Amino acid sequence: MALQDIEDRGRPENAAGNLAGASAAYVRGLIRRGEITGQTGGMALGQMQGNLAILPADLALDFARYCQRNPKPCPLVGVSETGDPMLPTLGEDIDIRSDVSSYNIYRDGELAETVGDITDLWRDDLVTFVLGCSFSFEEALLADGVPLRHLEAGYLVPMYRSNIATTPAGPFSGPIVVSMRPMPMSEAIRAVEVTARFPMMHGTPVHIGDPAGIGIADILQPDWGDVPEIRAGEVPVFWACGVTPQAAVQAAKPPLCITHTPGSMLITDLPSGRPA
Amino acid sequence: MALQDIEDRGRPENAAGNLAGASAAYVRGLIRRGEITGQTGGMALGQMQGNLAILPADLALDFARYCQRNPKPCPLVGVSETGDPMLPTLGEDIDIRSDVSSYNIYRDGELAETVGDITDLWRDDLVTFVLGCSFSFEEALLADGVPLRHLEAGYLVPMYRSNIATTPAGPFSGPIVVSMRPMPMSEAIRAVEVTARFPMMHGTPVHIGDPAGIGIADILQPDWGDVPEIRAGEVPVFWACGVTPQAAVQAAKPPLCITHTPGSMLITDLPSGRPA
Repeated sequence: MALQDIEDRGRPENAAGNLAGASAAYVRGLIRRGEITGQTGGMALGQMQGNLAILPADLALDFARYCQRNPKPCPLVGVSETGDPMLPTLGEDIDIRSDVSSYNIYRDGELAETVGDITDLWRDDLVTFVLGCSFSFEEALLADGVPLRHLEAGYLVPMYRSNIATTPAGPFSGPIVVSMRPMPMSEAIRAVEVTARFPMMHGTPVHIGDPAGIGIADILQPDWGDVPEIRAGEVPVFWACGVTPQAAVQAAKPPLCITHTPGSMLITDLPSGRPA
Repeated sequence: MALQDIEDRGRPENAAGNLAGASAAYVRGLIRRGEITGQTGGMALGQMQGNLAILPADLALDFARYCQRNPKPCPLVGVSETGDPMLPTLGEDIDIRSDVSSYNIYRDGELAETVGDITDLWRDDLVTFVLGCSFSFEEALLADGVPLRHLEAGYLVPMYRSNIATTPAGPFSGPIVVSMRPMPMSEAIRAVEVTARFPMMHGTPVHIGDPAGIGIADILQPDWGDVPEIRAGEVPVFWACGVTPQAAVQAAKPPLCITHTPGSMLITDLPSGRPA
């Protein structure tokens, strides 16, 4: 999987800073009109942003099962009606064909193209899934004073393929992909406490400490993202990551799957701070 | 809906007392061999018990959506593969055709019969859904010292049709049915704190105080269950209830739906005290 395919943890850039206080609806309007084409990190702070997976209906029940069975990597926050591009449970007037700034189109598991609108690709048999993402829990950690190195130092959060298997469902299976944030153990304990309140945003860590304990041979060689800086007295803290379902879907090689382009999330009207 | 159709909140009786410390697998074995045919309250304490709904596959995606959209009344803890009677994500060797002590068979939304085994009724297109139930959160409240009047006084928890609508999905819709437990406000606040940890068992209350606030005209006339005793200085505390999806499924009138008989729950191998 190319870097292109990861869930980007980038922070505000360009327009984002000015849009931090904007409403989700306002930012979606800019996106719908093509006035924002890039990443959404830092925009409409306080509104939940989500990962996107659009699949044909004949795979939808299996994917719903996969999310139910793997709530930490795949916290399901919304599912559309079959063929309906609107997402009324996630916000007002959300049209998933136009309200994400950039889409990746996968055909048979391969990235075929990246586009800014999928109106022409929409079909009556498509079902939209929106999964919680890490932006919201990072907001909560920062608000609580837990330091996040990758944001301070401006690098991409490192991600690793663990040896923890997801529970399969139909064609969907594979390892849990984890993101890693280094911190002192006292902060790690606090991070568990804080993220326990956010089961819909990956929830609590899946592991703290020895990377070998979850099958990671070299913490300085992430599978995706940047090489981390881990200081003396810090432990690596591993959370289930939204790359997990992306990798599972790509491995299943569905004839068509549409995702957000990493970092270009769907901005919902739901409060990002609401636990579940 | 007859009393027959409600989720019974009865407590240990007959064999249950002796089986409080038994393993879930042991109790399921007794049930499979027909040695237990009644309610499961109080058995295998510490193991999560669940509500059951078995539906034809062509309704399964809609029912999965209904659960996703209404997590308080419909906390989804397990979904089977289509046509597979086993539930490996909920426990070892669980065969849903024989491991519940009593099943209600609904045809076109009407109760057709109550049976002790559904092996003869099993079909390749059936999907099993297991939803969290209130037994586990009541265990947690009791363990925390929150008093539960209906258990102390030995009556059925009263249940009411509220004016809070569920979010529909396909043919499934209807009001949230709530159960009510009276207590002093100080205990109600503590009950919110305790049940916040159990989103898979109806989670926090949907309302505290004035019954009219959620469309209940007379708290002493429940729609199901027994008339409550509310003492001076107590407030009614309302939780979303497992009758909600049962009522929604019956109203949708699927050609076939199989549920547990109220009170005769599926006993899983999952720890009942695990938050999510």
